[in-house]
Amino acid sequence: MPPIVGVIGGGQLARMMVPPAVELGIDIRVLAETEGSSAAIAATAVGDYLNLDTVLAFAETVDVVTFDHEHVPQAILRELVSRGVQVHPGPDALLYAQDKLLMRERLSALGLPVPDWAAVASVAELDAFIAEHGGKAIVKTPRGGYDGKGVRVVSAATEVADWFVDGQPLLAEELVEFRRELSQMLARRPSGEIALWPVVESIQKGGVCAEVIAPAPGSAGRVADVAADIATSIAENLGVTGALAVEMFETTDERLLINELAMRPHNSGHWTIDGSTTSQFEQHLRAVLDLPLGATGCRDTWSVMVNVFGAIDLDARALADQPDVKFHGYGKSARAGRKVGHVTAGGDELDDVVFRARAAAAFFED
Amino acid sequence: MPPIVGVIGGGQLARMMVPPAVELGIDIRVLAETEGSSAAIAATAVGDYLNLDTVLAFAETVDVVTFDHEHVPQAILRELVSRGVQVHPGPDALLYAQDKLLMRERLSALGLPVPDWAAVASVAELDAFIAEHGGKAIVKTPRGGYDGKGVRVVSAATEVADWFVDGQPLLAEELVEFRRELSQMLARRPSGEIALWPVVESIQKGGVCAEVIAPAPGSAGRVADVAADIATSIAENLGVTGALAVEMFETTDERLLINELAMRPHNSGHWTIDGSTTSQFEQHLRAVLDLPLGATGCRDTWSVMVNVFGAIDLDARALADQPDVKFHGYGKSARAGRKVGHVTAGGDELDDVVFRARAAAAFFED
Repeated sequence: MPPIVGVIGGGQLARMMVPPAVELGIDIRVLAETEGSSAAIAATAVGDYLNLDTVLAFAETVDVVTFDHEHVPQAILRELVSRGVQVHPGPDALLYAQDKLLMRERLSALGLPVPDWAAVASVAELDAFIAEHGGKAIVKTPRGGYDGKGVRVVSAATEVADWFVDGQPLLAEELVEFRRELSQMLARRPSGEIALWPVVESIQKGGVCAEVIAPAPGSAGRVADVAADIATSIAENLGVTGALAVEMFETTDERLLINELAMRPHNSGHWTIDGSTTSQFEQHLRAVLDLPLGATGCRDTWSVMVNVFGAIDLDARALADQPDVKFHGYGKSARAGRKVGHVTAGGDELDDVVFRARAAAAFFED
Repeated sequence: MPPIVGVIGGGQLARMMVPPAVELGIDIRVLAETEGSSAAIAATAVGDYLNLDTVLAFAETVDVVTFDHEHVPQAILRELVSRGVQVHPGPDALLYAQDKLLMRERLSALGLPVPDWAAVASVAELDAFIAEHGGKAIVKTPRGGYDGKGVRVVSAATEVADWFVDGQPLLAEELVEFRRELSQMLARRPSGEIALWPVVESIQKGGVCAEVIAPAPGSAGRVADVAADIATSIAENLGVTGALAVEMFETTDERLLINELAMRPHNSGHWTIDGSTTSQFEQHLRAVLDLPLGATGCRDTWSVMVNVFGAIDLDARALADQPDVKFHGYGKSARAGRKVGHVTAGGDELDDVVFRARAAAAFFED
């Protein structure tokens, strides 16, 4: 019998696990939030991942539970583990992707490079932090934020007064002067094997990933080594299983500072579907099943991924214009600003690859 | 709304259409013969493709009908077309993949290179053909044969006496002295666009494809050009839509002779999943939807595909031993001699690529 991987969440990350599962002969089953989800083709259950009974019933039908997102509560995760369910990543690791304050505390304790930060529980504490950091700070709600949500750049604590509501501290961080944003992805098996892809450059627009260049230009050598060391240290010390993305700032004074963690396939790794011998989705499946990891070499000198927002369809003009570009649609209905797909180009000349990827994506612009 | 492609037949070819459909955002639906088919993840109907009502009901749920195999009867195909259903390939083309005698007649009429052949309706006619061709002939039942079934090499007509049962003629062919077998694949859209992959070498064992080397060694130049011209001529003259495989003999006196046709994705094109910018399965979907075709360049200097028979599972030793090899399982239960998966390796040195592909497949040997 083939192994059965259960994915909680029916978004595009679950959807993109389907092709490698079908190819490898893995039985993939999804617990989706709604009918007609992005991963509907593999949805064997529809229900609320906040409901313990729903999650338990789903878990009984699979060999290992993994995730499309980080929102399954710790209490449910720990109940699964206590009942002997294989859960990857496990709750002890996932905690640090769920709570940014705990993540900052843990990474600091490990001596890993992070921006200056503080837990601020009041307007007065935040104003003190701002005063100590040049009159500005980034304030984050520790839980629930993504794609720029739950994040504000402020010059006075009153700008996030509405967030000081439940007595829970917020995370305040220095505003890092950075050259660019990088992302280091890897996958780690429960038995310890780790495989890394090259560090990539991630170009954000409005707090959302817009483009990824793989590898990050000029990163070969010190930057790649430091990024790999940081991500490896996080994976090993936090016991991450499955895919891990470590988003980092490369500062104007040439340091790498850890920004965010994601313990799942990540937008900064979508290029691997077409650009690496083993995609992040195949690798995640191998990793959560504790199978040997695949090679992570690049198929092209450069890969460039551009996200598509709003609507993506099989536009004949786009396909005809860019026969070498790979088009990926997430099966989502059109909505302004919604991430609905991506395109990836590859080749030897970075300028040309960027041009082709952007040209393909431009056919779908909002 | 995404386009809906309906595939009749739930075998591994339908299964392998699922990953590119999911990636492109195409809604793929399969009419499978049985529950638990290889393409079960996309099976929206289970029923008999010989039953008109079953096929019609399925066709009403999709935008275009295509196939996992060539066994849907002409009467049903023509009824679909008469009701306005898009069917690709259409019955006028598919006829020549269904009936080897009609295929030989048509290709001969087009002046395309085929082995000497004759329609033989009796033991006496076959014995005459054998006598004229050095005492041996290949005899084929015009319909229903595949993977060596319905094919016999004979030196006397009595060896196929059991096939002269219904008064239908058999196909007799000269036994070609060939250096090797080649396969030229392409895809063609209803609007006429054609895209070809490079001609490949297909190594058969016991009448079944065992290995494919892409491109065929030493084929660059004349062999590639002639193979491409032959396949293009067939596609255009027969009005093929979707994927087409033209299996050929390269003779010891350096001619190419057409052996078989398949109007669907084909075993000799499985290497394209990992080895070409556009796989045969993605291209088939684009073609049957009359969308612009993708680029067919090679990702590696050499790609080698080796079929796996009997059983394939996610063998940890195989994955660990060959991290660069791509493993493909068809979700079929184990049975001696059954084609259950394949592996593909790629790289710059042919000897090394062949070694890695065979080493990976050897973990699963019957």
